[in-house]
Amino acid sequence: MSKPSHIDRAALIQAAQRIIPYVERTPLRTSEVIDEMSGARIFFKCENLQHIGAFKARGAFNALLSQHDFSELPGVATHSSGNHAQALALAAGVLGIPATIVMPSNSPKVKIAGVKRLGGTIRFCAPQVAARESELKAVLDETGALFIPPYDHDAIIAGQATATLEIFEQMSPPDAVVAPLGGGGLLSGTGLAAHHFHNETIVYGAEPTTVNDGQRSFYSGKLESNPAGAETIADGLRTHLSARTLRYIKQHVSDVLTVDENEITTAMRLIWEHLKLVVEPSAAVPLAAVLRNQKLFAGKSVAIILSGGNIDLDQGLF
Amino acid sequence: MSKPSHIDRAALIQAAQRIIPYVERTPLRTSEVIDEMSGARIFFKCENLQHIGAFKARGAFNALLSQHDFSELPGVATHSSGNHAQALALAAGVLGIPATIVMPSNSPKVKIAGVKRLGGTIRFCAPQVAARESELKAVLDETGALFIPPYDHDAIIAGQATATLEIFEQMSPPDAVVAPLGGGGLLSGTGLAAHHFHNETIVYGAEPTTVNDGQRSFYSGKLESNPAGAETIADGLRTHLSARTLRYIKQHVSDVLTVDENEITTAMRLIWEHLKLVVEPSAAVPLAAVLRNQKLFAGKSVAIILSGGNIDLDQGLF
Repeated sequence: MSKPSHIDRAALIQAAQRIIPYVERTPLRTSEVIDEMSGARIFFKCENLQHIGAFKARGAFNALLSQHDFSELPGVATHSSGNHAQALALAAGVLGIPATIVMPSNSPKVKIAGVKRLGGTIRFCAPQVAARESELKAVLDETGALFIPPYDHDAIIAGQATATLEIFEQMSPPDAVVAPLGGGGLLSGTGLAAHHFHNETIVYGAEPTTVNDGQRSFYSGKLESNPAGAETIADGLRTHLSARTLRYIKQHVSDVLTVDENEITTAMRLIWEHLKLVVEPSAAVPLAAVLRNQKLFAGKSVAIILSGGNIDLDQGLF
Repeated sequence: MSKPSHIDRAALIQAAQRIIPYVERTPLRTSEVIDEMSGARIFFKCENLQHIGAFKARGAFNALLSQHDFSELPGVATHSSGNHAQALALAAGVLGIPATIVMPSNSPKVKIAGVKRLGGTIRFCAPQVAARESELKAVLDETGALFIPPYDHDAIIAGQATATLEIFEQMSPPDAVVAPLGGGGLLSGTGLAAHHFHNETIVYGAEPTTVNDGQRSFYSGKLESNPAGAETIADGLRTHLSARTLRYIKQHVSDVLTVDENEITTAMRLIWEHLKLVVEPSAAVPLAAVLRNQKLFAGKSVAIILSGGNIDLDQGLF
């Protein structure tokens, strides 16, 4: 078994420098109303305003730019029906690399359109994990493309960490940072950024109760899964941790907090109403966790990563 | 008859300097998708991210700060069911002046709550114009408060002009600026700002077809009104011009463009989806006008003032 990888301080600095020309330095926003309700001072890092509407652009750019001679790659590929698909299509397109995205045939039309607009080639597959993986393998075999996974990858994690590095530049280091937890790429990066740059900042993950594999994995120390058919409005957070992200999260994250579906909807509405920002349900999970755990955050300065804003407006959420 | 007032360059500079400590310098945002659709390069001035969620905070602060010894005012008052109510309550509260807002008894709960949260005293009246005016007169008589009208006031107009002054600092002067037209305070200020600072920038007003008193007044040169019961989803734009705002608009605005209701909804949705910003229908009217008049704006750089983001999310707009 190979030695576990380790992302050091230099890797995070390199990631931040590499991606500067390609990503937005997203603003921090605040709301007096939300501060009053929460009893904390909350700073929202607006990754919904990032290119492709989500932080995933950071990791995708870093993963490609950190490849030696990336411009000579025959192509890159991934499977995703979510924000990573658009992020990889964007980064590959900008850098002149062909990108093939394996998408389930039932993916939302808006996301299919997004990948096409960004110049990605789509290969549809049946909406099961096995079909995704075999289709991806076929793409890799045919094209010689490099597989860029959505989170189980050190360069992806280092890229996501740059959101927190920016937070540290934009404000006095907060008492806490709260990031949503799905596959664990963003939360791993957040924990690593705090560890290497402001170790006194406490990092929390936030997850829907209905898909709380992250919290259970965090407590048991081994990879847990969710019951078949477990659902959440926070569609970006249905994925499981990997051994890599669990390890980073165990090392650098203080706790994983869970929230109920109605708490997510309430928090999302607060963000829309008082920050005037469109965020997807996954992005509202950290605020829901802060509102649920008022004692933990009372009087604290808390940075929340608004992870994305890609939502189907036809859903009628409120 | 007194000589018509005139807002000179110095008045705009003074307004900008006065309100700096009290208002947000709101960002400009862009969207490649919207640029592709429109054939123009559009820069959105995000006044939905302004305090109280609308540009009106600018005028209210300037109107109070430009009063000699404003801190000795016995109070200020206005009648409004909209963004000016919250703007005046905010500015008065910050500056330590009592504010009384006459609001129709059927005002949206969210706006009543907003005025209360900002410390304004509310006096309810029947929802007719005559009732509003007599209730306001009673307040002024009882309290000695100064009436701060929503747009028919030079200091209000100079305050609203500062949004465009910021645009000129944030980008190369655009070929055009498009602002929504209701009572004409914002559009007057926009026209004056271009006139005094970048006369080559063309200014357009944008208005719903159903309440096109502004366009008809602009063409006839006299104050026109809307038919009784005329409705629009852009609730902020139902008001009429005043003699003052008509004069400024005739002098400094090139044309008034009108758009249909479905065009407003389409434009609003584009802004929510691609800019990830919550805007109210009135704020989407300029984009609707640019999309409807593609030839006029083809290849041009166009600044659009996203005037506000105060919208009832229960409405189910899409």
